[in-house]
Amino acid sequence: MTGNRRILGIDPALTTTGYAVVAADSRGSVSLLEGGLIRTKPTDALEQRLKTINGTLTEVIEEFEPDEVAIEDLHSRYRNLKTAIIMGHARGVAILAAGSAGVPVHHYQPARVKSIVAGSGRADKAQMKRAVSMRLGLSTEIDKDDVADAVGIAICHVHVTGVPQNI
Amino acid sequence: MTGNRRILGIDPALTTTGYAVVAADSRGSVSLLEGGLIRTKPTDALEQRLKTINGTLTEVIEEFEPDEVAIEDLHSRYRNLKTAIIMGHARGVAILAAGSAGVPVHHYQPARVKSIVAGSGRADKAQMKRAVSMRLGLSTEIDKDDVADAVGIAICHVHVTGVPQNI
Repeated sequence: MTGNRRILGIDPALTTTGYAVVAADSRGSVSLLEGGLIRTKPTDALEQRLKTINGTLTEVIEEFEPDEVAIEDLHSRYRNLKTAIIMGHARGVAILAAGSAGVPVHHYQPARVKSIVAGSGRADKAQMKRAVSMRLGLSTEIDKDDVADAVGIAICHVHVTGVPQNI
Repeated sequence: MTGNRRILGIDPALTTTGYAVVAADSRGSVSLLEGGLIRTKPTDALEQRLKTINGTLTEVIEEFEPDEVAIEDLHSRYRNLKTAIIMGHARGVAILAAGSAGVPVHHYQPARVKSIVAGSGRADKAQMKRAVSMRLGLSTEIDKDDVADAVGIAICHVHVTGVPQNI
């Protein structure tokens, strides 16, 4: 057993979904295999936008074969019901991509991710980018907020589930 | 041209999704081809529940080849953000089933459906079941609320989009 596992982190939203595939070795070190944004056009029909999100994540799962998916949980940053329901649509088709591939899904509250990754549940976007880039050992910081958030969710999952062989 | 078209009506929810395939002829008469409920277990993982909803609707679309899908719109009956987001998950994977098959999706507010089908935006479930059963010419009433709602959404779409050949 190599101890390596792959985690797909997802920060879902209808317009811009961030995703990142992170590998964790048996010492708990993490490295970034792939990160990207799925953008959909507000002028496209909702069914097309959801198909783009689900289809892209399905391709990422086929290519990188993650062992687990970690995704942002239900949260309270949406004050408006309509926005919350729309976010639910994007999250639903993202989770479905994992379910269809038989990959288990784990849910994390944003404040927990920030606390574990950046040391504070109130870390801002700049702090999250710095923290995840440092954890990945990157010489230049990740420049996309949503990719950094997706990396953060994956790192949070690695931290929470531990490295059983080496603790 | 026969003037016949098929509409798949969907009343989405995580635990029980109602669906109905309705055929509308060139005179605007509607008949029920198929109706059913998709039930998912609260004890199953969310990704499995969403897969069941999306997979069943995908099969219904493959079998009945509807020309259009009509679905309940965002609405305000959810007072709680968490419930609203969860409803969004179910609705998202239902819409995705249509999008993946290239079937256009139309959205209707529940009050509009009730008003068009039962004559009042505040029609209760018993009134909706009676109204849709009568419109379908059934000798016995549809007994499932969620199937009746799905039929109602399909009938609403037929009414709203009209029968161009015969008006």
